[in-house]
Amino acid sequence: MTKKYQIVGVGNALVDVLAHCEEDFLVEAGIDKGVMQLIDTARAAELYDTMGPAQEVSGGSAANTIAGVAALGGRTGFMAKVRDDQLGRIFAHDIKAQGTDFSTRQAPNDYPNETGRCLILVTPDGERSMNTYLGVSSELTANDLDIGMLAGTEWIYLEGYLFDSPDNQIAFYRAAEATKPAGGKVSLTLSDPFCVDRHRDAFRAFVKDHVDLLFCNEHEMQALYQTETLEAAMEMAAAEVETVACTASEKGAYILNAGEKIHALATATEVVDATGAGDMFAAGFMHGLTMGRDLMTCGTMGCVAAAEAIGHMGARPQIDLKELFAQNNLS
Amino acid sequence: MTKKYQIVGVGNALVDVLAHCEEDFLVEAGIDKGVMQLIDTARAAELYDTMGPAQEVSGGSAANTIAGVAALGGRTGFMAKVRDDQLGRIFAHDIKAQGTDFSTRQAPNDYPNETGRCLILVTPDGERSMNTYLGVSSELTANDLDIGMLAGTEWIYLEGYLFDSPDNQIAFYRAAEATKPAGGKVSLTLSDPFCVDRHRDAFRAFVKDHVDLLFCNEHEMQALYQTETLEAAMEMAAAEVETVACTASEKGAYILNAGEKIHALATATEVVDATGAGDMFAAGFMHGLTMGRDLMTCGTMGCVAAAEAIGHMGARPQIDLKELFAQNNLS
Repeated sequence: MTKKYQIVGVGNALVDVLAHCEEDFLVEAGIDKGVMQLIDTARAAELYDTMGPAQEVSGGSAANTIAGVAALGGRTGFMAKVRDDQLGRIFAHDIKAQGTDFSTRQAPNDYPNETGRCLILVTPDGERSMNTYLGVSSELTANDLDIGMLAGTEWIYLEGYLFDSPDNQIAFYRAAEATKPAGGKVSLTLSDPFCVDRHRDAFRAFVKDHVDLLFCNEHEMQALYQTETLEAAMEMAAAEVETVACTASEKGAYILNAGEKIHALATATEVVDATGAGDMFAAGFMHGLTMGRDLMTCGTMGCVAAAEAIGHMGARPQIDLKELFAQNNLS
Repeated sequence: MTKKYQIVGVGNALVDVLAHCEEDFLVEAGIDKGVMQLIDTARAAELYDTMGPAQEVSGGSAANTIAGVAALGGRTGFMAKVRDDQLGRIFAHDIKAQGTDFSTRQAPNDYPNETGRCLILVTPDGERSMNTYLGVSSELTANDLDIGMLAGTEWIYLEGYLFDSPDNQIAFYRAAEATKPAGGKVSLTLSDPFCVDRHRDAFRAFVKDHVDLLFCNEHEMQALYQTETLEAAMEMAAAEVETVACTASEKGAYILNAGEKIHALATATEVVDATGAGDMFAAGFMHGLTMGRDLMTCGTMGCVAAAEAIGHMGARPQIDLKELFAQNNLS
């Protein structure tokens, strides 16, 4: 029986606030380049005051992936927590406008924590350094999950960043437990090497118990398994999960599946802003998977979708992804 | 004596909400292509519900111009009304972050009208069709003006769209009266042909009484003077104001100054989104003027700045305008 959804995501609801800056700015502001740092309200206000003119685009790692799958024509749903404020309405609009079901109960407008945002500084080399004020997004609990949606999907896609919140972790277990008995599968993205460092045991346990498809990059993979080489880490992951898809920037992506090893090449592109490249790789890959494509095609779909995101400010697709895939003979 | 400001703007405070759409969408949604329509709260909600995923960038016609001048290193100030909400804080941040003094009293967070926004639909040909919910922006009154700032500037730059509000019109007279006795000059942009049609007499009177430099495009110029030809309208304007700068899309700009006629050629560029092209022309032109450049150089500066805006989504500059000018041997 065809399920209502192909992929349902659970993740953070963030609006990205993107600004260009010089390398010096990162140093002066004490920002670690290329990674995600969690910041509190005071730091968010201070950093926003010093950063340059910005543009706002809906973000959130898993939300970007789901928006990408929806843009490719996939049947998608998403769960994440926003407040009923202007940024929350922007987030909800953008994900629904892409064709995704989004019905998570919103926190009322007078709730103390605002909708979350991610202050992203983009340096001239196109690298993005992220400073996340989670706000109400971190308060997603198991009670916020739409159990019917989870039971009605082929895949759930979970965002590793949520391991920073104990409530979120519990929600992940609950989500997996609602999905699997109904015949669905579980995918997880590790999100960030420092997030993996902070919660290694919890990640290891969840991966071993529940994950069928693991997305990561080289740094995250080695952070998870603490091995000398990427190959050793990949082997360890392959022993625990069915499929591992590890992105490696300009080298493309390495995919392991039941002993099969595949290397999908990166699509050449000018790097404007790396925000969302990993998210969009996952979108392309999972779209291929739900369409029944072979793993090399899935990997290439991931690389083509990632290249589109790298070519402009912000993560969400700015051109017709279906048309882009058709131009690349991917369908 | 050097004045504190070179250019102080008075205009709308809007956050642009930009989305791509097909031509059909404009027809179905009843949107007139290529112009600005004022919309009320209900229409704004209805249109937002039906439009695609969007990105948010600070906008407002005069605000874009002032941000452009600031990006070029000009000493700038700006007056416009926002509410103390998330979009209002975004608007205030972006204009201040570009180096502009912005101190207009904000309406409190519980004020019924929100910060204004402009829902912009960009068709595949790059044309933008604007739907403006003015919100609290239309409530700028003469009492909101910073008289000291007006007396301390070489030029004020006024946004024609404000003629839609009687309070705004009164504020314009008050602004001119605060600027001129202190030795400052008055520039005005006509903004939109339909806005000129709605308030032709008021525009004519204000231009005749106060304007030293008039910005417009061909359609606005002919709407103002209701002549058969652009040339006839330009002649009528030249009899009333010192300098007229009329943009003409891919033909560039025509400038009339005390009998002198100049044609600045447009800079070739790929049209991604025409939003803000006229605003950025005014920025480049006025920057040249305050730097004491000849009118041909001013016109070329305008065309180069406009081309930058046309090359990406949103009006505000996304690259270093100073560097762009240097590459074009403009300084």
